[in-house]
Amino acid sequence: MSNNPLGEHEIIRLIQTRLSSMPDMPVPFGDDVSAITLEGTQTVVLKTDMLVGRTDVPKGMSLFAAARKAIVMNVSDFASKGICPTAVLAAVGLPKALATEVSVVEIAEGLNAGAREYGTYVVGGDTNETGDLVISISLFGTTSNRLPLRSGARVGDILAVTGRFGKPAAGLRLLLGDYKASSELREVLVDAVYSPKARLQEGLALCGGGCVSASIDSSDGLAWSIHELSQQSGVGFLLDVLPVAVEAEEFAVQNGLDPVELVLYGGEEYELVLTVRPSMWGEAQTLVQAVGGCLIPIGKAIDKKQVRLILGGEELTVEPRGWEHFKSQV
Amino acid sequence: MSNNPLGEHEIIRLIQTRLSSMPDMPVPFGDDVSAITLEGTQTVVLKTDMLVGRTDVPKGMSLFAAARKAIVMNVSDFASKGICPTAVLAAVGLPKALATEVSVVEIAEGLNAGAREYGTYVVGGDTNETGDLVISISLFGTTSNRLPLRSGARVGDILAVTGRFGKPAAGLRLLLGDYKASSELREVLVDAVYSPKARLQEGLALCGGGCVSASIDSSDGLAWSIHELSQQSGVGFLLDVLPVAVEAEEFAVQNGLDPVELVLYGGEEYELVLTVRPSMWGEAQTLVQAVGGCLIPIGKAIDKKQVRLILGGEELTVEPRGWEHFKSQV
Repeated sequence: MSNNPLGEHEIIRLIQTRLSSMPDMPVPFGDDVSAITLEGTQTVVLKTDMLVGRTDVPKGMSLFAAARKAIVMNVSDFASKGICPTAVLAAVGLPKALATEVSVVEIAEGLNAGAREYGTYVVGGDTNETGDLVISISLFGTTSNRLPLRSGARVGDILAVTGRFGKPAAGLRLLLGDYKASSELREVLVDAVYSPKARLQEGLALCGGGCVSASIDSSDGLAWSIHELSQQSGVGFLLDVLPVAVEAEEFAVQNGLDPVELVLYGGEEYELVLTVRPSMWGEAQTLVQAVGGCLIPIGKAIDKKQVRLILGGEELTVEPRGWEHFKSQV
Repeated sequence: MSNNPLGEHEIIRLIQTRLSSMPDMPVPFGDDVSAITLEGTQTVVLKTDMLVGRTDVPKGMSLFAAARKAIVMNVSDFASKGICPTAVLAAVGLPKALATEVSVVEIAEGLNAGAREYGTYVVGGDTNETGDLVISISLFGTTSNRLPLRSGARVGDILAVTGRFGKPAAGLRLLLGDYKASSELREVLVDAVYSPKARLQEGLALCGGGCVSASIDSSDGLAWSIHELSQQSGVGFLLDVLPVAVEAEEFAVQNGLDPVELVLYGGEEYELVLTVRPSMWGEAQTLVQAVGGCLIPIGKAIDKKQVRLILGGEELTVEPRGWEHFKSQV
């Protein structure tokens, strides 16, 4: 047996195979959220995701921003299924050095700000002593809508995203390496790392309108998310648009980087990546615009199970890689 | 400002004061569980509690036992309010050294065993890389019963526990220090540390029957739990029975220890500590016995806000101390 640590996806797979399945689960293991059918038409939706200092809190991020981000990470998964978070639980693990009034208050205020920003409340939690900062968030919500799974894309569906990519990937490079950017550009890119936003309004509008055939958030990177939709739905995707943020493109040009790398393989993005039946496209656009968002078509689902990008006449393979705990290096 | 780390209770208090309160919360911050009123008479009950390697996993405890214990810790809080756990979420933080197939499978099997033991299922989770082993569990359940709070005890109520105390405290001393015990005794005491049980059946029976005026679990120690009931309910307690397990008494005698210390201040116990109106006592006994449990009366609620124990003609003060993260030493 190899002594290399397993990757996150392999660990999750191993755990899933050892768990007894609850009968009639409306969402399979491994999708963005978990769900339980209550009596009547109500579905309870649950999510847990853990923020860890060493991997999720980049250099210079305040404790306030880290705590807020712990909430955003979870809300983003709810957004991808169109679920409004009713309540938040927060289990906080603190190293002794952070068990001070100043630090604790900053974390509490970050949790509260994150919750209130998405219309929800922290209703309970737990505190422990840990080696790293650990903020483990759980969300609870309900819906009577059908939940769009990762597996619902069909050949011909339009692949779309709720925003342009690359800013967090560029911002992270600025924080960790020796890169150039004007102070204005730097501020925008670093802010994308420190203050991510979940696309909750967009998710609620699109899923509430029944416009989404498959959906996932992009926290592990756009490429990884598209591959996950591909694998779960049994379709491929042909992309003809690279949804690059202007600031990310500017950063790439100034630093001799490939914007494709920033957009596809960056991670730490909280856009929604979803598919829409062509007949629903107009309605989807209208619904997203009504909440002040945008929906950018970037390609379509195809029969051939591969993910490729046509860009300036060239066709590239989109690789199934992105951020993965235990394997990726910060 | 002092540089000493704050204690867990002070941290929780600081966090609570910074959180916006959800309107009409049926359970106040700081009780064993959190709750939300859904439409109709249904109450949703939520709980999160984090197991951390350095403080919650004593020497020699297997990963299977640690993962199972993470579930038991949470189920015990549900038990204290008479709530059946419908579903479990598990966020697991692993040090790189534990990201191996053998370790991951052991953790998954421990999680599954813990969930199935209490009739529930792990429906989702998350995996991350951390410095310590961290298993953050969240539970979801529903009820149409009134939830017994920590604040419901009234003068004259009978104070009772669902079992005898002291075995985990003795077992922990055996694991960490130089103490004597026969191999049979050692096995019983260490097993109490490695394989704690939550009193779910007892909690469901008692709360389902409406017999409980106030309730808490005893994970931070019996003395601390009684003081918490005292403080939240605005009553004192006079104890006239020390509910000591025979094995804990035997261990105390053999090692020249005070059984009072083991019983009151041990912690890591998962008995329920509750109050019952005298008029409901017979019914409470019947209900607990029907599920194979026991209910031991140990004292009564009094007007004077102090907690005292009469033992062999002597009256002792029960101190408000127990296990507290950041302050207590393993």
